[in-house]
Amino acid sequence: MHRIPIGVLGASGYAGRELCALVRKHPDLRLAFATANEQAGRTVELPGGGEVTFVATEQAPLADAQLIFSSLPHGASKAWVEKSRAAGAKVVDLSHDLRIGNGVDGVVYGLTELYRDQIRGADIVANPGCYPTSISLALLPLIEQGLIAHHATIIANSASGVTGAGFTARTDLLFGEITENYRAYGTGNTHRHLNEMRALLGTLQSDAELVFTPHLLPIARGILSSITVPLRGTLDDAMAPFRSRYGTEPFIELASAPPELRHVTGRNTVRIFAQPLAHLKQPTLLILSAIDNLMKGAAGQAVQNANLMLGLEETAGLPV
Amino acid sequence: MHRIPIGVLGASGYAGRELCALVRKHPDLRLAFATANEQAGRTVELPGGGEVTFVATEQAPLADAQLIFSSLPHGASKAWVEKSRAAGAKVVDLSHDLRIGNGVDGVVYGLTELYRDQIRGADIVANPGCYPTSISLALLPLIEQGLIAHHATIIANSASGVTGAGFTARTDLLFGEITENYRAYGTGNTHRHLNEMRALLGTLQSDAELVFTPHLLPIARGILSSITVPLRGTLDDAMAPFRSRYGTEPFIELASAPPELRHVTGRNTVRIFAQPLAHLKQPTLLILSAIDNLMKGAAGQAVQNANLMLGLEETAGLPV
Amino acid sequence: MHRIPIGVLGASGYAGRELCALVRKHPDLRLAFATANEQAGRTVELPGGGEVTFVATEQAPLADAQLIFSSLPHGASKAWVEKSRAAGAKVVDLSHDLRIGNGVDGVVYGLTELYRDQIRGADIVANPGCYPTSISLALLPLIEQGLIAHHATIIANSASGVTGAGFTARTDLLFGEITENYRAYGTGNTHRHLNEMRALLGTLQSDAELVFTPHLLPIARGILSSITVPLRGTLDDAMAPFRSRYGTEPFIELASAPPELRHVTGRNTVRIFAQPLAHLKQPTLLILSAIDNLMKGAAGQAVQNANLMLGLEETAGLPV
Amino acid sequence: MHRIPIGVLGASGYAGRELCALVRKHPDLRLAFATANEQAGRTVELPGGGEVTFVATEQAPLADAQLIFSSLPHGASKAWVEKSRAAGAKVVDLSHDLRIGNGVDGVVYGLTELYRDQIRGADIVANPGCYPTSISLALLPLIEQGLIAHHATIIANSASGVTGAGFTARTDLLFGEITENYRAYGTGNTHRHLNEMRALLGTLQSDAELVFTPHLLPIARGILSSITVPLRGTLDDAMAPFRSRYGTEPFIELASAPPELRHVTGRNTVRIFAQPLAHLKQPTLLILSAIDNLMKGAAGQAVQNANLMLGLEETAGLPV
Repeated sequence: MHRIPIGVLGASGYAGRELCALVRKHPDLRLAFATANEQAGRTVELPGGGEVTFVATEQAPLADAQLIFSSLPHGASKAWVEKSRAAGAKVVDLSHDLRIGNGVDGVVYGLTELYRDQIRGADIVANPGCYPTSISLALLPLIEQGLIAHHATIIANSASGVTGAGFTARTDLLFGEITENYRAYGTGNTHRHLNEMRALLGTLQSDAELVFTPHLLPIARGILSSITVPLRGTLDDAMAPFRSRYGTEPFIELASAPPELRHVTGRNTVRIFAQPLAHLKQPTLLILSAIDNLMKGAAGQAVQNANLMLGLEETAGLPV
Repeated sequence: MHRIPIGVLGASGYAGRELCALVRKHPDLRLAFATANEQAGRTVELPGGGEVTFVATEQAPLADAQLIFSSLPHGASKAWVEKSRAAGAKVVDLSHDLRIGNGVDGVVYGLTELYRDQIRGADIVANPGCYPTSISLALLPLIEQGLIAHHATIIANSASGVTGAGFTARTDLLFGEITENYRAYGTGNTHRHLNEMRALLGTLQSDAELVFTPHLLPIARGILSSITVPLRGTLDDAMAPFRSRYGTEPFIELASAPPELRHVTGRNTVRIFAQPLAHLKQPTLLILSAIDNLMKGAAGQAVQNANLMLGLEETAGLPV
Repeated sequence: MHRIPIGVLGASGYAGRELCALVRKHPDLRLAFATANEQAGRTVELPGGGEVTFVATEQAPLADAQLIFSSLPHGASKAWVEKSRAAGAKVVDLSHDLRIGNGVDGVVYGLTELYRDQIRGADIVANPGCYPTSISLALLPLIEQGLIAHHATIIANSASGVTGAGFTARTDLLFGEITENYRAYGTGNTHRHLNEMRALLGTLQSDAELVFTPHLLPIARGILSSITVPLRGTLDDAMAPFRSRYGTEPFIELASAPPELRHVTGRNTVRIFAQPLAHLKQPTLLILSAIDNLMKGAAGQAVQNANLMLGLEETAGLPV
Repeated sequence: MHRIPIGVLGASGYAGRELCALVRKHPDLRLAFATANEQAGRTVELPGGGEVTFVATEQAPLADAQLIFSSLPHGASKAWVEKSRAAGAKVVDLSHDLRIGNGVDGVVYGLTELYRDQIRGADIVANPGCYPTSISLALLPLIEQGLIAHHATIIANSASGVTGAGFTARTDLLFGEITENYRAYGTGNTHRHLNEMRALLGTLQSDAELVFTPHLLPIARGILSSITVPLRGTLDDAMAPFRSRYGTEPFIELASAPPELRHVTGRNTVRIFAQPLAHLKQPTLLILSAIDNLMKGAAGQAVQNANLMLGLEETAGLPV
């Protein structure tokens, strides 16, 4: 069978290598090129086996690819998205550059379960951030069904594995600094993902406010978000809004107990559990949402979107 | 110098062994006996070096000790506190049995920074739970200074190392189940520490409600609590209430950035950081509070209390 | 297509659950039953997704399966292998009971790359131990090609992840006891895998002696064996014996640098690297051999053997 | 009391910060300055609490210190040792520059238990490498007592925590690359510590050859060396040579079972266990030796040596 040629820009990072691995195992895609500037010419091992040799981004034969994933750094990615489009390729951009809230036109925000139809016809998709994926999918049914209290303050505490910080030579990410440690970071109003989520809330015409506190876990992969949401009224069945919204979604799992990160590791899945907090006067829901930050939080969702853009089966090549 | 004889009941667990280690290094105390039923007769290594040989709890020479720490399991501890008192020893009980909210008379709740004077004169002190220590000390200045909004809902997300679950042969605590994993547990209204904290709020005449979501970290020791507190009004200086309340406290550190668990590991310290969440309409404070669950969250605070009960320097024998 | 029905006895342990997961994803097999005595009736999550519900071993419909994997404990497995045979099923036994060195007739030792032809025709295969798999495959080319020095002493230092010790409620396997720790165990002549390897050396008519020192790593999965082998003479190309012996093997990877455990995790692969120790008078080879103890060291090799016994493609259903 | 002023050059690395922490807690020493070029002006937290502010190495008031520890990088250290001497300070150098095997005169090799008397009178001490400390102390009694077989090949497999690789921004030391991983490195004849150990064997007039294979553990601190030594004859009591040599040593612990790394973490201790390998024709001893690479393997042994050089109690300020 003819496989569709794919390019990966900025392929040496964690998400980039995961993208290469997914493309290599995908039944309908083939890896035309993978770029990395500092590691140009190097051959590295991919997660799950197999190897890839990087070319310099400037040398990338953009026109050879029908779709290009850009996993270039924030700020640097936007220009390469344009070059890729000019070369005729569709693009899924994994950087922050084109995401919702940045005021960029002609780009679809790639939260697949929300914008599936628009993604099918898109030339450029901005893949959501990892934290926003875990939190937005937890809130979406409540927002759409009008269940959140008026002017509610939603509190989202998230904890992420270290690959979320990228494959960067930073001393604060050394094993010796992370093992047996845990800390919050980007607190207050400082994490760029908060703006992304607030922009999405605005688009969905929600008046809720959001507190977002990310933490750094001593694990490689995974994000767990623990979210409290004040409700308009009590819910007889806390999972009902999620079942009715997500019942047929291939990549959303509704859990009957608090999800564990290891159960989503390596899988393009969001696992969601909701529980009423019955002891409070104000009806409030606790939602726990687990993803693999490199899969549903990055490369997996990117391939899910690419499948739609290329007219393939949405689940093709993705471990369920 | 004459050292005061100390007994430890239930010494084979994590807190019990930490107690033995602290007593052994304490300049004014000596370990008269350490009990453990299943491990009676066994000699084990203590954290930081040194060994202890356990006797069966039934064989413990209670009358030989001037003060006894009970680290027996919840439910089993209460009877041994009574036997220890009958034998003439003062007692610090580390179990849940006598803690605030259980309606037990004649016992002082051992949150040292709140009840220091009462602890000095107490015969029985109920050492606070690890989570309540980390959360209560973060809230205390705000409660006492009347800064919390009327009928506020306080959201406390906590993450604890695995030793908090005890030295128990459970398959869900095996290394293979915890490494590269993270999950919430005891969610909703189910963790006994929530009742302990609500009882304390009641005693302090606070009308605040509390949501408490504990999580299990893949580390051995440490608790980080991330707490949002609606305020009565804006605070010009988020740390001011903590400075004024805790300025002279030997075991409370006020941080200028989000605290890291490793910086409190092995130390009898609470490290607290507070930050206003300026983007919200309702003035709200984010407080981050870090302790070592086996030190300030258990054995360390127990020795701090014992020092007061025995008329010693409060900081004696405690790593600062 | 008709899938071949498979049973798994003792499926609740780490290897057992991995077997269930492999059978579930295998294109030619289906899981007829999975047994677990203490967890009978329970439904658990499998690695990589999916669930299985256990039945009691006594209730297992042995006759429904064409092939049965026994992952029962050492000692208990042998009787169930016989019952499974009596019910008409072929058996791959993952316990120690029937392995080489135990003097059991009618059983083929399932080191696939050595006994492939015999395994094809076997009714009962004794799957090798995890350490013996990693070490025997490292030595096999040298033994077969007569390259090892006369009466050599081979020193094998191995380090294994904690799942190698099984899914057992033991306090010495708790996360708090393993993290930030490392130790040797079963030293001297005490580990049963040493006998298994010595029996294999005898069968292969090697006069080499073996020192085996296993260690416990703070990781979940993987075994790295670091082996020194005195040679009969110098080797111009240290990898040549491995290339000539393993060139076409689907599950053996010859590395150009010391292998990392993470590169074999989740894969049914042995990765081997050899390097001469040029500074010694006695020509000596250092061999480094890496496997996933639950895959090539247990469930993966078991499926590899089952594929041969059932006339399927050897690589069917196995992640390469 | 008057405390002796101490300088630390290259204090921002793991060993350097440990040195600062030890000096700060030492009853007879005080920290006069601590230098770090890239982090000059920064204040960092020390292990166990407390802070230090770095000055640039060029700005260090060398003449203010009576003894200077140099923890500067290999290559850069030698020149600063000379400047420190010229300024009148005694020096303990933790780099490789002046160690045995480098042909440097006027320097004592700081393996305390071997060269205690020479260290007392030395102006410059070259602190041994971490691996050589763990291996040399395991071999010393056997060498001195003539127990090793003629022309023996000693096989030393060592595994080290990641802090042994230094506080350096390298992607291969990121948490995501180390967790759930294990690998050998510096194999063959390539690790500089092998030369150090061979030089020591030569000095001790041993004709033994040495194979040294270091590995990288997913832990922060600790080195375990597993060593096989061919013996001249059988030993009735494998621990006897160690007891007679080390009976009164304050920092050597003789164990009755394989040592665990966590039992030496944070302590200036070598823990040694020896066991005959009875199943071999050639009498052979297995020795297991555990240290904390930052304590007895670096900063702890450096302070032990400094205590001797300054006429203090050898154990002063060191956690036993």
